[in-house]
Amino acid sequence: MTEPFANLDFDREKRCGFPEFIFGAGKTPEQIADIMKQLHKAGKPVLATRLKPEAIPVIRREIPEAEIHENARTALMRDYVQKRPGTVAVVCAGTSDLPVAEEACDTLAICGITARLIPDVGVAGIHRLLNRIEEIRKADAVIAVAGMEGALPSVIAGLVAAPVIAVPTSVGYGASFGGVTALLAMINSCASGVTVVNIDNGFGAACACARMLNRIQVTD
Amino acid sequence: MTEPFANLDFDREKRCGFPEFIFGAGKTPEQIADIMKQLHKAGKPVLATRLKPEAIPVIRREIPEAEIHENARTALMRDYVQKRPGTVAVVCAGTSDLPVAEEACDTLAICGITARLIPDVGVAGIHRLLNRIEEIRKADAVIAVAGMEGALPSVIAGLVAAPVIAVPTSVGYGASFGGVTALLAMINSCASGVTVVNIDNGFGAACACARMLNRIQVTD
Amino acid sequence: MTEPFANLDFDREKRCGFPEFIFGAGKTPEQIADIMKQLHKAGKPVLATRLKPEAIPVIRREIPEAEIHENARTALMRDYVQKRPGTVAVVCAGTSDLPVAEEACDTLAICGITARLIPDVGVAGIHRLLNRIEEIRKADAVIAVAGMEGALPSVIAGLVAAPVIAVPTSVGYGASFGGVTALLAMINSCASGVTVVNIDNGFGAACACARMLNRIQVTD
Amino acid sequence: MTEPFANLDFDREKRCGFPEFIFGAGKTPEQIADIMKQLHKAGKPVLATRLKPEAIPVIRREIPEAEIHENARTALMRDYVQKRPGTVAVVCAGTSDLPVAEEACDTLAICGITARLIPDVGVAGIHRLLNRIEEIRKADAVIAVAGMEGALPSVIAGLVAAPVIAVPTSVGYGASFGGVTALLAMINSCASGVTVVNIDNGFGAACACARMLNRIQVTD
Amino acid sequence: MTEPFANLDFDREKRCGFPEFIFGAGKTPEQIADIMKQLHKAGKPVLATRLKPEAIPVIRREIPEAEIHENARTALMRDYVQKRPGTVAVVCAGTSDLPVAEEACDTLAICGITARLIPDVGVAGIHRLLNRIEEIRKADAVIAVAGMEGALPSVIAGLVAAPVIAVPTSVGYGASFGGVTALLAMINSCASGVTVVNIDNGFGAACACARMLNRIQVTD
Amino acid sequence: MTEPFANLDFDREKRCGFPEFIFGAGKTPEQIADIMKQLHKAGKPVLATRLKPEAIPVIRREIPEAEIHENARTALMRDYVQKRPGTVAVVCAGTSDLPVAEEACDTLAICGITARLIPDVGVAGIHRLLNRIEEIRKADAVIAVAGMEGALPSVIAGLVAAPVIAVPTSVGYGASFGGVTALLAMINSCASGVTVVNIDNGFGAACACARMLNRIQVTD
Amino acid sequence: MTEPFANLDFDREKRCGFPEFIFGAGKTPEQIADIMKQLHKAGKPVLATRLKPEAIPVIRREIPEAEIHENARTALMRDYVQKRPGTVAVVCAGTSDLPVAEEACDTLAICGITARLIPDVGVAGIHRLLNRIEEIRKADAVIAVAGMEGALPSVIAGLVAAPVIAVPTSVGYGASFGGVTALLAMINSCASGVTVVNIDNGFGAACACARMLNRIQVTD
Amino acid sequence: MTEPFANLDFDREKRCGFPEFIFGAGKTPEQIADIMKQLHKAGKPVLATRLKPEAIPVIRREIPEAEIHENARTALMRDYVQKRPGTVAVVCAGTSDLPVAEEACDTLAICGITARLIPDVGVAGIHRLLNRIEEIRKADAVIAVAGMEGALPSVIAGLVAAPVIAVPTSVGYGASFGGVTALLAMINSCASGVTVVNIDNGFGAACACARMLNRIQVTD
Repeated sequence: MTEPFANLDFDREKRCGFPEFIFGAGKTPEQIADIMKQLHKAGKPVLATRLKPEAIPVIRREIPEAEIHENARTALMRDYVQKRPGTVAVVCAGTSDLPVAEEACDTLAICGITARLIPDVGVAGIHRLLNRIEEIRKADAVIAVAGMEGALPSVIAGLVAAPVIAVPTSVGYGASFGGVTALLAMINSCASGVTVVNIDNGFGAACACARMLNRIQVTD
Repeated sequence: MTEPFANLDFDREKRCGFPEFIFGAGKTPEQIADIMKQLHKAGKPVLATRLKPEAIPVIRREIPEAEIHENARTALMRDYVQKRPGTVAVVCAGTSDLPVAEEACDTLAICGITARLIPDVGVAGIHRLLNRIEEIRKADAVIAVAGMEGALPSVIAGLVAAPVIAVPTSVGYGASFGGVTALLAMINSCASGVTVVNIDNGFGAACACARMLNRIQVTD
Repeated sequence: MTEPFANLDFDREKRCGFPEFIFGAGKTPEQIADIMKQLHKAGKPVLATRLKPEAIPVIRREIPEAEIHENARTALMRDYVQKRPGTVAVVCAGTSDLPVAEEACDTLAICGITARLIPDVGVAGIHRLLNRIEEIRKADAVIAVAGMEGALPSVIAGLVAAPVIAVPTSVGYGASFGGVTALLAMINSCASGVTVVNIDNGFGAACACARMLNRIQVTD
Repeated sequence: MTEPFANLDFDREKRCGFPEFIFGAGKTPEQIADIMKQLHKAGKPVLATRLKPEAIPVIRREIPEAEIHENARTALMRDYVQKRPGTVAVVCAGTSDLPVAEEACDTLAICGITARLIPDVGVAGIHRLLNRIEEIRKADAVIAVAGMEGALPSVIAGLVAAPVIAVPTSVGYGASFGGVTALLAMINSCASGVTVVNIDNGFGAACACARMLNRIQVTD
Repeated sequence: MTEPFANLDFDREKRCGFPEFIFGAGKTPEQIADIMKQLHKAGKPVLATRLKPEAIPVIRREIPEAEIHENARTALMRDYVQKRPGTVAVVCAGTSDLPVAEEACDTLAICGITARLIPDVGVAGIHRLLNRIEEIRKADAVIAVAGMEGALPSVIAGLVAAPVIAVPTSVGYGASFGGVTALLAMINSCASGVTVVNIDNGFGAACACARMLNRIQVTD
Repeated sequence: MTEPFANLDFDREKRCGFPEFIFGAGKTPEQIADIMKQLHKAGKPVLATRLKPEAIPVIRREIPEAEIHENARTALMRDYVQKRPGTVAVVCAGTSDLPVAEEACDTLAICGITARLIPDVGVAGIHRLLNRIEEIRKADAVIAVAGMEGALPSVIAGLVAAPVIAVPTSVGYGASFGGVTALLAMINSCASGVTVVNIDNGFGAACACARMLNRIQVTD
Repeated sequence: MTEPFANLDFDREKRCGFPEFIFGAGKTPEQIADIMKQLHKAGKPVLATRLKPEAIPVIRREIPEAEIHENARTALMRDYVQKRPGTVAVVCAGTSDLPVAEEACDTLAICGITARLIPDVGVAGIHRLLNRIEEIRKADAVIAVAGMEGALPSVIAGLVAAPVIAVPTSVGYGASFGGVTALLAMINSCASGVTVVNIDNGFGAACACARMLNRIQVTD
Repeated sequence: MTEPFANLDFDREKRCGFPEFIFGAGKTPEQIADIMKQLHKAGKPVLATRLKPEAIPVIRREIPEAEIHENARTALMRDYVQKRPGTVAVVCAGTSDLPVAEEACDTLAICGITARLIPDVGVAGIHRLLNRIEEIRKADAVIAVAGMEGALPSVIAGLVAAPVIAVPTSVGYGASFGGVTALLAMINSCASGVTVVNIDNGFGAACACARMLNRIQVTD
């Protein structure tokens, strides 16, 4: 029973357009497994993010049918996912940014949204991005994931008409300040209409997309 | 002739889904008036933002038919605006946040999007926000404008399913650091899927909405 | 004998209205246990805070009758507590903020003040807070504990007439900067009369309440 | 008529225990004078703070009976003030901190609370503070105002049992960062139970005292 | 006679490979004009940078033959410039970055180096940069000038083999922090071998190029 | 096969003038060894930097012929290095700065450039630097490596005509902020034409030199 | 009569070893002139620092015999100065640092201490400093004044055995952050035993010297 | 033989007035033991500071006659210490500041200067400081060690005429930022003539005292 530590919010989907997720950072492995089971039993799609390393074997043992992505630090149960219209391109600058991009993809998956991962197209080799731009232009929204100088969203937003959500990552060292430089760069994007989420917050970027695509669903 | 100082980008609308805007901060009043005329002659809707006080009489004199909003520091010419589907609620915390909210409204107007301004619903009097929540829920996107502790977007995002774009303002003093505190608070919103633009960037928030509503238009 | 490392200040209660507490962070487990015994022998209520993990088994072994709260990282001996008038509502935003809230509750307990813990009422689900507001209004003071964007105290202070002491927590990631964002947000609260203590300082917030309730006691 | 720019909140006194105040920073002189008149007509005590220099002659002309404190940048109308029990000592470190201390005193006055100003007792001449300590000890709450290294609240809180609200001021230069150093120092006070408000926020400290003394009133 | 305020360093050219320049920010207009005359009399090329507005009429009056660039805030006397081999491309992101780019061009000119200015090729319209890339590739060094998110140097450095010196500018607002965000972004460039100078320091970037081209000269 | 995690960029040498390097920080030991082998097989010189301690035994086992520098955290294979003209002096302030200086030397070696290491010439014993200055003056470029107050590049740049690339290191404690103070000091160098790379980025400084010496090669 | 705004502290000389000084920043011109007269009448040496421009004509008119240094923003009356043993070298990096150096010299003069000003010996031309080093070595204490990268104190402290007090100045631009970079650099000096005062605080550095030379006086 | 990693500077004593010390942070245990032996063999007093835990058993084994202070993280060999005139009071605020104070005492001891440790006199219990003030007043210099709000040096400097060197410590949590708040507070001391060293730099404060007392020695 989870009451002692959290009131599950089964109405959130109606209120906010996406299911309740489990933020693993501040919970014990046992608490996470418990909530996962409870949500699953209630017929909800299940996603736990920010799993600490010690949580993974516990979930594996307790819920063998859960799908676990170690890099992305996520655990998923897709049974009750309902497919929605809309596609999101999740574009990322370097291979070290992949875990954050994957957290975004997993979150989109649980929301029923199609995600297309386009990795390793950082701006220091601009031809790599240009080679994939037609594919990116087809998406209804773009999540642009980058660390270091965080320039990727600016370049993309100059090339597409869809909304661009920028995710700064903690990839870098020295004066990257754990992602703060990328965050600031993205906030100051010279391309109009880029919006930004917290450092390494692939999850939040996906939720923002879900909010946008809620409307597409409605207006269809 | 404007060549010496800027190459106008008449293709941007196709590429990014909204017209070229004039960022007044780094231009002389004469340059601004020139570009406004040129865009208008080309049959484009016209918006100049961040007008410095000395620009206003010049524009008034040079382009008497332009609509000028002194608070918002904007000048508009609506002739060629094409109406689009979709409504955006522009919600703001205090009366001092109004100029930023109005910049957002003017930008939406020039993009052909209906904006609904909901002022003075800061979180220290939560009943004021709750009284207007049904109205806010009807919008396809919400722009939440607040300075000081920047809490408004978190509360709203817990109450609506639409995308919430948070605009921190420089309203405040002392440790508000010209809007940095509000910006950081919004980036750390405990409500999932809030995205953030630069301080006082009502314009950018509106562009983000235009990008989102591009898709509604497309999928209709 | 504790002289080598600390002069106990048995007059503090008279001077400041609350007993001497033991700040465990900079002391060895043995020093903590020693001072606890010494205070207890002197007929004082005993509270040690910020216990490091290695301190807990030592205290358990040395002072089996002490009450230990692992989450809150506190050890208590309530024998000589003297009950005082006044109630404090300790309200917290998320389950991860609980240890800080519990440190506040334990400190209040040792001061003889009644604490009422109201957990998990963060602003992203404002109905949860509104459901408990009558209970909060009954308190003589409110301690509002929150991490991330730190918005809870502003909302509460708009709803109650009692003093609101805001405690930022280090809960969050990325641009939460270990609680600095929440601290700054609380310092900039748009609700008048909110006061703030250091990050994770549930103890200090409780002491502030004890100082306030000193006066109630006096004026009764 | 004030509607266009602000909804007056006549219920605030019931809700928060003090009247609505007028924050002058973001309003035109005419708006301020208007709201002052409106509140006065409604039988409320009136306080406008943070007056810009240009507001003062306007208020003087429009409301000749208003009391104006140029240093504190305040305008008051005391007609409907209702006296309450309780005294607050407003202690300040240097002569440059006086305007902030006076803003606190004026706010207390409008709340009906007795304020006692104790100026120029900075810690670099500790005998000055010790000479006045008995007077300070008699107060129900202490507001300690200081810039530069912001040490005053720590010393006072070690000497009195009443609540101590620390107000950092922007007095200083270089690495005082407009009061940020004093703010941080106060947040880190080694004296237990000090709480802090924003830089130069004498007003907020007084509101915090009003909240505390609400309770004394109630329990009398 | 300039002794009272500065010892001119006529050996610097031998020691550092470029002449002594006059940093106008901390000098009176009269001092600047004096030093300009003195250097000119000594048969040196003359450049004064960072002229304050009040310096310009004084220099115009005192040294009518000097060339003054108001935007770049520079005054030049090219008489004794000695042409050197080598070309530098000075590339800048937006029209507001032009004054910094021009300061770089003027400094290069006085060092006898050919500068080619390539304006208005910011990354939000990447085609503009790509259209000019062959021209940039011909240069022996590139100075990349950009404010806001400062992404330009990263993109260029991925496309050219020459050294890229990044100059952050104070162009931007809000969280651009007067150029700090651009500076940090450039320091964190994901393109290898980008080096960075201070904010708005077009002059310093040009000096760095002069140092590099010293060697070309030597090895020819 | 490395495709899943990185597209090797065999054209970079032509485009940027130096080979592809392996940044070890974000890769598993196995990935690093794989890429090293692949590059070697393609007839490229090989350098892996920022090796984590656990990578070293793996590389040793997998590629016994690789040269490993534990201090510098690098692994090299020099077989296909092509010697180029030009010498770089790598000057460092203290013995703790050596690993960063050595990373620079190894990178230069793989680019075919002669490096001369001049250690332990910090400015607090200026005679040590002056004793070596003639040697430094012979170099075509200088890399100046320093932590703490980061003063070395300023002193050197006043003594040599070659380009000076400043590398701040994370050597220091307290208010050195992991190298940020040295970085800021170097950005503010009073010597004209110093350029700066990220903290501890010996690699990047060497790449900047390679870019400069590309041109010497071309013009010979 | 000065009572309303400040209690003069005639005992300070006995207590702290130097007279009371007048910090002009927070006082009106009339207050400053008043206190100057009062101290002079009491037979004290008089120094007012940080005079605002508008204070200078008032002091000139009110106290024609006062000596005014406009650059240093000081006013002095030397009548009652008592000469003490000891000499202080006040060394400064650039001509823009002179006002701060002169404030130090004036303060020393009023304390009766001999000051020797050694200007324009910044580290980018190290020969200038070395030319004057014997003179500096003769002093009992050294005040080293520098802005930008603040390297001067480190170099000097490696060359002299006397105490070195570092004064960062606000000279610089961009990432000098108004002197913060110089302050941090000095705090991180690699030379042992350098101590630091606030930005532009020539006055404080002189007071520190007076404290040191108090002791020389005593032990003679 | 130590050459590979450091050139010992046997002349430093003549140049700077104190012997060469060993900064243990960046050296291996074996290197530290080696240098200690070498200095001792040369007839010098020996002090190693900032020993890492793993260095202590190595030194104990290699140099059994060395005196090791685990708290202060120092190792000493006092054989060749030469006693000098002068006494320094090392005053510290809390028991957690003791290691830093002890590092200062050990450094003074090796310089031949008498140190008097006065612990646990923090400003929140001002009577403790006042009880010891006569003892402090007898010293030729005062080192004031404090973390958190760093107020101790200000209070002391108002009570003594000797030089006061402030040492901020990393004691504290949350917004103490590892000692930055204490550092800033000390830099902004309202008491004239306080000078400051780096965080936790007890060693540097002692060296500053040695520099001061050099002069006493000379002038005796």
